[in-house]
Amino acid sequence: MDTPSFFKRIIRSVVDPDKRARADRKARQLIALCRSLLSEGGEVSGAALAREALAAYHSLPEFALLAFFDLLASEFSPDPQELTRACQDYCAQPSPDSLIRLFHLVEPPRQELFRRLNMAAGGTAALVGMRERLLGALKAHPEWKGIDADLEHLFSSWFNRGFLTLKRIDWHTPAIILEKLIKYEAVHEITGWRDLHRRLEADRRCFAFFHPALPDEPLIFIEVALTRGMSAAVQPLLDLGSAVSDPQSADTAIFYSITNCQRGLRSISFGNLLIKQVAQELKQEFPRIRTYATLSPVPAFRNWLASVQEQLAATAAGRTVTEELKRLDEPEWFKRADSAERVQKHLVPLCAYYLVHAKSDGEPVDGVARFHLGNGARLERLNWLADISKHGMQRSAGLMVNYQYRLDDVENNHEVYVKEHRVVASPKLKKLARECPLSQPAGKR
Amino acid sequence: MDTPSFFKRIIRSVVDPDKRARADRKARQLIALCRSLLSEGGEVSGAALAREALAAYHSLPEFALLAFFDLLASEFSPDPQELTRACQDYCAQPSPDSLIRLFHLVEPPRQELFRRLNMAAGGTAALVGMRERLLGALKAHPEWKGIDADLEHLFSSWFNRGFLTLKRIDWHTPAIILEKLIKYEAVHEITGWRDLHRRLEADRRCFAFFHPALPDEPLIFIEVALTRGMSAAVQPLLDLGSAVSDPQSADTAIFYSITNCQRGLRSISFGNLLIKQVAQELKQEFPRIRTYATLSPVPAFRNWLASVQEQLAATAAGRTVTEELKRLDEPEWFKRADSAERVQKHLVPLCAYYLVHAKSDGEPVDGVARFHLGNGARLERLNWLADISKHGMQRSAGLMVNYQYRLDDVENNHEVYVKEHRVVASPKLKKLARECPLSQPAGKR
Amino acid sequence: MDTPSFFKRIIRSVVDPDKRARADRKARQLIALCRSLLSEGGEVSGAALAREALAAYHSLPEFALLAFFDLLASEFSPDPQELTRACQDYCAQPSPDSLIRLFHLVEPPRQELFRRLNMAAGGTAALVGMRERLLGALKAHPEWKGIDADLEHLFSSWFNRGFLTLKRIDWHTPAIILEKLIKYEAVHEITGWRDLHRRLEADRRCFAFFHPALPDEPLIFIEVALTRGMSAAVQPLLDLGSAVSDPQSADTAIFYSITNCQRGLRSISFGNLLIKQVAQELKQEFPRIRTYATLSPVPAFRNWLASVQEQLAATAAGRTVTEELKRLDEPEWFKRADSAERVQKHLVPLCAYYLVHAKSDGEPVDGVARFHLGNGARLERLNWLADISKHGMQRSAGLMVNYQYRLDDVENNHEVYVKEHRVVASPKLKKLARECPLSQPAGKR
Amino acid sequence: MDTPSFFKRIIRSVVDPDKRARADRKARQLIALCRSLLSEGGEVSGAALAREALAAYHSLPEFALLAFFDLLASEFSPDPQELTRACQDYCAQPSPDSLIRLFHLVEPPRQELFRRLNMAAGGTAALVGMRERLLGALKAHPEWKGIDADLEHLFSSWFNRGFLTLKRIDWHTPAIILEKLIKYEAVHEITGWRDLHRRLEADRRCFAFFHPALPDEPLIFIEVALTRGMSAAVQPLLDLGSAVSDPQSADTAIFYSITNCQRGLRSISFGNLLIKQVAQELKQEFPRIRTYATLSPVPAFRNWLASVQEQLAATAAGRTVTEELKRLDEPEWFKRADSAERVQKHLVPLCAYYLVHAKSDGEPVDGVARFHLGNGARLERLNWLADISKHGMQRSAGLMVNYQYRLDDVENNHEVYVKEHRVVASPKLKKLARECPLSQPAGKR
Repeated sequence: MDTPSFFKRIIRSVVDPDKRARADRKARQLIALCRSLLSEGGEVSGAALAREALAAYHSLPEFALLAFFDLLASEFSPDPQELTRACQDYCAQPSPDSLIRLFHLVEPPRQELFRRLNMAAGGTAALVGMRERLLGALKAHPEWKGIDADLEHLFSSWFNRGFLTLKRIDWHTPAIILEKLIKYEAVHEITGWRDLHRRLEADRRCFAFFHPALPDEPLIFIEVALTRGMSAAVQPLLDLGSAVSDPQSADTAIFYSITNCQRGLRSISFGNLLIKQVAQELKQEFPRIRTYATLSPVPAFRNWLASVQEQLAATAAGRTVTEELKRLDEPEWFKRADSAERVQKHLVPLCAYYLVHAKSDGEPVDGVARFHLGNGARLERLNWLADISKHGMQRSAGLMVNYQYRLDDVENNHEVYVKEHRVVASPKLKKLARECPLSQPAGKR
Repeated sequence: MDTPSFFKRIIRSVVDPDKRARADRKARQLIALCRSLLSEGGEVSGAALAREALAAYHSLPEFALLAFFDLLASEFSPDPQELTRACQDYCAQPSPDSLIRLFHLVEPPRQELFRRLNMAAGGTAALVGMRERLLGALKAHPEWKGIDADLEHLFSSWFNRGFLTLKRIDWHTPAIILEKLIKYEAVHEITGWRDLHRRLEADRRCFAFFHPALPDEPLIFIEVALTRGMSAAVQPLLDLGSAVSDPQSADTAIFYSITNCQRGLRSISFGNLLIKQVAQELKQEFPRIRTYATLSPVPAFRNWLASVQEQLAATAAGRTVTEELKRLDEPEWFKRADSAERVQKHLVPLCAYYLVHAKSDGEPVDGVARFHLGNGARLERLNWLADISKHGMQRSAGLMVNYQYRLDDVENNHEVYVKEHRVVASPKLKKLARECPLSQPAGKR
Repeated sequence: MDTPSFFKRIIRSVVDPDKRARADRKARQLIALCRSLLSEGGEVSGAALAREALAAYHSLPEFALLAFFDLLASEFSPDPQELTRACQDYCAQPSPDSLIRLFHLVEPPRQELFRRLNMAAGGTAALVGMRERLLGALKAHPEWKGIDADLEHLFSSWFNRGFLTLKRIDWHTPAIILEKLIKYEAVHEITGWRDLHRRLEADRRCFAFFHPALPDEPLIFIEVALTRGMSAAVQPLLDLGSAVSDPQSADTAIFYSITNCQRGLRSISFGNLLIKQVAQELKQEFPRIRTYATLSPVPAFRNWLASVQEQLAATAAGRTVTEELKRLDEPEWFKRADSAERVQKHLVPLCAYYLVHAKSDGEPVDGVARFHLGNGARLERLNWLADISKHGMQRSAGLMVNYQYRLDDVENNHEVYVKEHRVVASPKLKKLARECPLSQPAGKR
Repeated sequence: MDTPSFFKRIIRSVVDPDKRARADRKARQLIALCRSLLSEGGEVSGAALAREALAAYHSLPEFALLAFFDLLASEFSPDPQELTRACQDYCAQPSPDSLIRLFHLVEPPRQELFRRLNMAAGGTAALVGMRERLLGALKAHPEWKGIDADLEHLFSSWFNRGFLTLKRIDWHTPAIILEKLIKYEAVHEITGWRDLHRRLEADRRCFAFFHPALPDEPLIFIEVALTRGMSAAVQPLLDLGSAVSDPQSADTAIFYSITNCQRGLRSISFGNLLIKQVAQELKQEFPRIRTYATLSPVPAFRNWLASVQEQLAATAAGRTVTEELKRLDEPEWFKRADSAERVQKHLVPLCAYYLVHAKSDGEPVDGVARFHLGNGARLERLNWLADISKHGMQRSAGLMVNYQYRLDDVENNHEVYVKEHRVVASPKLKKLARECPLSQPAGKR
């Protein structure tokens, strides 16, 4: 679902007054059901009423969603008067009782509504879908923020790691799950069933987290290649025709793709837990594997590059770089040996600099770096012409990074990162970063 | 675990100053782990730290539990100053933002702590067990009320109906689950495996709710006999030697036992949902079954009877009754035909009166009646000498009740009960109640 | 595997004397292992030795297969002398003992060898594959007939219906099984995963028999469309873009494809059992379905047509037919309304005649007819332009047949067919057959 | 079922002529169904007819079983005339074709009948049960030998190791299987669920073979204790109150009980395969375990002892032994230290002699020794007062043996045993045997 245009469509459609009236009516009917569900009777009629409300939600015309969210925001929030009183009581006397009372009043009735909707079959899926739609429209409707906060709060409780199961995905997995991988894959597109099959052969592993209430929906999945040595390029891994190697001879596990599947679960993070548990699983199955590392894109590199042109222009070295990097705009520059070599010479130090030093609000500008460094990995190696796909060239200028997970250092690295916002990198990479003109006195920020 | 004496033992033990110091130390170590788990690093080290904290909790000496709960209550509550400020902010301007802020501050950090503990394997079971222990000591330690409120709040979210699975229990069920039935059964004791086997034969059904995180632990289970006609006595149902009848010839499903298994889930109610879903399942499997009814004890009847002696003494009819009912104290009175008959004559109307009219705070005094009437069942029939076990004679004077669930009336009955606190009963039962001396003008309350 | 050319290749390759020697050596090594396995020790070393022998078999170079089969035929047959003696003993005195002795001696040791090979993991699959290879070469090597007889005898015992499980195949089925459907489908090619998915939607059913020792290998599968009315053409059923209809509104189940998957199980028949059990399953799930029928090709029709040209030439009517049917050789004749109509007029009665009367050894010439009539179905309806695929036009001139399975008549129909070799057909179809010139006096056979 | 008395009862009952006539009629009806099932129609009506025949078999009155077996023996045997002809043909010309023909004719139609009965649900269980009943009566009815041969032949094919699955049995196993263990245990009685539970704790393992057609019926099961050092007595292993030890600290696996469960599968042997596969499984789970040994009874020792009295009397040493061993008849002799010691001194060498030298037809007299030595184990150690149960004292004079399975020697040992009938024993045990008076020159056999 392409949510922005979806909402534009809605907005256009509700200009029609008839349609608007109908949307209002539909939304109000659903809200009435929600109110019943929240009443004392609702608790007893239980699943039946939840089922009815859910059916009404599913048959809600798209253009009535706005009205529904509006009502959800206005009618199922805490009662300001009561809450104000409870606040005053608490301030007057902050006892356990006044606190418990405050706690109960401050929780928007929406949360209980969502919990009751969840009693019906398919409830969890519907609520996750509801948040996906909501998120798509939140920018235009900041007044719905409270709804989002409620759903996020619920989901972070429901999708607790203790309730998730890690499952291996392979060719024995049901097709209904496999097709989701093809659909969701966010890093290196899966072009079809043949491509998927190659990624599930004996020299690969794929794992996903599942929640019992969404048995056919992976929450997040990771793809791993079992290799000899740390992969320096992704195309060989994606090559459909590549020979399947013997996994028992592998010494390295390369995490080459990790995808969050459910937009409705935004900011409920599973990635960190998944990587670590998968590393544990692999260690068990393949005692010979010594290295756990990613092969990751540098997605915002070229954007950042554009943003530092002025800075580069401040030094002669920088100007040379700028001059040389103009080649990046020539088509297929990287296929000509001389071009490639000169670009490499100037670009790699810049990228190292970007990864080690480019920050925003104290954290690395690069989202992927933020994620892996935050998990306790270390910036290990920069790989030249590692992803020569159109996408890879456009965003990362073909560069990819190995972030290495040394299981014994992970906690320390994470500590250092969190407390001091210091980027843990290999000496070689740090050296590269120092070679960048931006690292020179005149070029420092 | 016999909690009261368990806590008495603890209290005794901590008089010893050495032990007390050790308890404090152990509890503080655990609390330190909990604090790490709650820190930002805790989120990342994730499951590992949770595992460690859980292990520390499990190895906590019993006598250190007091200290642990004390620290849990004092150290993981909201910060009163911050919260007071947030209250004042909200009162000053009750916007979505100030509400969300208030919402986050009012939630005790304990809840997040519990959620993180839950990441480790066995976390859910440990937390449910923790609340069981806490509940056993709450009377003596009202200052722990907040901990209980937090756990209850979490559990009511986690054990949402949408996450439970209904499973049939039969002789194909793993022994590890079956032995729990023997252990937990709360209504009619299961004397061993042979007894259990009889209750799982072809003319019986047993269903339980399970939560995915507690795969070997039923949360609640119900035992059903498939009979011809509505059972009027429980001993034939419990008879190990009774012949197994053909379930296809049954026209009635008798719910003769329902047991909540987890004390740690107190006030998270599943019973109502279970009865209704089981009725649906049975309807599917046995289209010929027309009647769904319980065969239930009247557990507080004799207590109540003792409490109305004075009232009875107010009328001549009442005095006669009191006189006749002295037989109840004779051993085996019910085995002598004449005795039994005279007792029956006077006792049955009293019991009918008790069920229909005896109230406390507007609700029926009888807990079982409260449960089934609240679910929308109707008081159908009183059965004389229906449970002649020692237990049954002592508490219910041998009487049992059929509460009938008519699927079409359930919602209405419930409505009537909730709104008007009116007891829905069969005409025959109401008539019986009117025959009771307490119903007479002079005897009215 | 394309067996004929495979064997041709082998034969060519073994002209080389070196290779021949090597083949012989390899085959002899395997045979030596087989002999060990058959020895008394073999029974005890059991699975280990079987594993070894199986590994040797799997690594046998293709060109050594001939030598292996030769040795299998010559060395593991009953001892003629011993057997002759046992025959004479039995003839002299046909007692239970002499019979049991004869029984044990006549069973080729190969059977025990195969049973012992089966002890290793993957044994069953290897043996089924061995027979597939054997069957491909049997014409050229009639001396291997005994091996085939042994394997067939074993398989008909091992693949007994009592050991098979019927499983529904749908989008929840593992990919490793689904890809087999794409590979094996023998009636209407499955063009890929999208095509397969359409055939597994809500308005379709697919079932297969599985054997526990071959969990990822369907033995036979059937595809069913749930429709309103009896389908008269197959292209709408195969249309990837067709709307998915509500299966609850269906009154008819159309079996439009049935495929035996394992060549190595030739003449072990499952089809009859599958169709009947699937009909039972559908009856259970969809009580509204009244009609169970196939939509089947007439695969040998055009071949037969060519063979009766002379006969047709014997009458004037026949000659007209022959003349008109020349259009069949024009490209895309069926797309021109006038052509199509004239062809239809003459061809349909011929096809009806073919189905009802064309026999060979007393049984219908048409293999598909033989199968369904033998199962107790009845020839219900001929459908014009029902399969306009290239394949369908070439073999069946676009015609398809509905064979109807009336569950109550199946046994009678079968009886009639088996005893009298009478074809059970609808009156309309019989009438059509009578209109064919070959039915006319001068044209009768 | 107590078969001998069961058959006596039958025999008595059929003296009554009316009953006899009814039995005949019932048996004939069933035989008629069997004949239909074997007809060509039977193949098509398939499962339905098999179901009917099976139902008729199950409802056959016990006293009609004789008549049924008689008919089975007389009517479903090969046709002597046809078979004689086939024998003569084969003798005249022993070609592949005449062999195949002979093969098909010599197979009693009963085998095909049994295969077809097997198509119905529950068929396999019914046939196994049928053989159990048959075996119980075979001594009295040698004319049924052929039926038994047929069933045995079928079962040895159907219950091939390749079709069996090894399953661990523990407290997660369904009760329906666990109760079978209690029922079937043949070596050390399981006294109830508590006893069973102890045998399934963390320091024990239990494994069984299952066949897919009998999912709730173990075929054979073995009980293993994980211990430190080789157990010298069985009572500690059977002690319900014994502490559960940490399996990770074990260095020895003691197979202390192995039970064949299905009498109807007599002479289809699984024990050898089970022991070896279980040893493999344990090796995988517990790399520290170095010793795999049994703790086995010497069931026929005292019988044998009685039989060698005369031989003992031939030497002075022997006469002393005989004198001393009279104590064995005193009650509780083994509880008096002096008695026990003197008995031990004389009895242990005799038992060693018995195990190493006592043979019948070249094989050890002792059935348990025959089984384990035949599997390649070695006689390791004799244990004094190792089983002081009533049973153990009566049959084995309290002695038990450790047979050790050294995985590397198993094959060699087996070879030696099979070819030379030599008993592989530890030096210590051989030395003990030499000390026995029967080993002395005058006492040699």
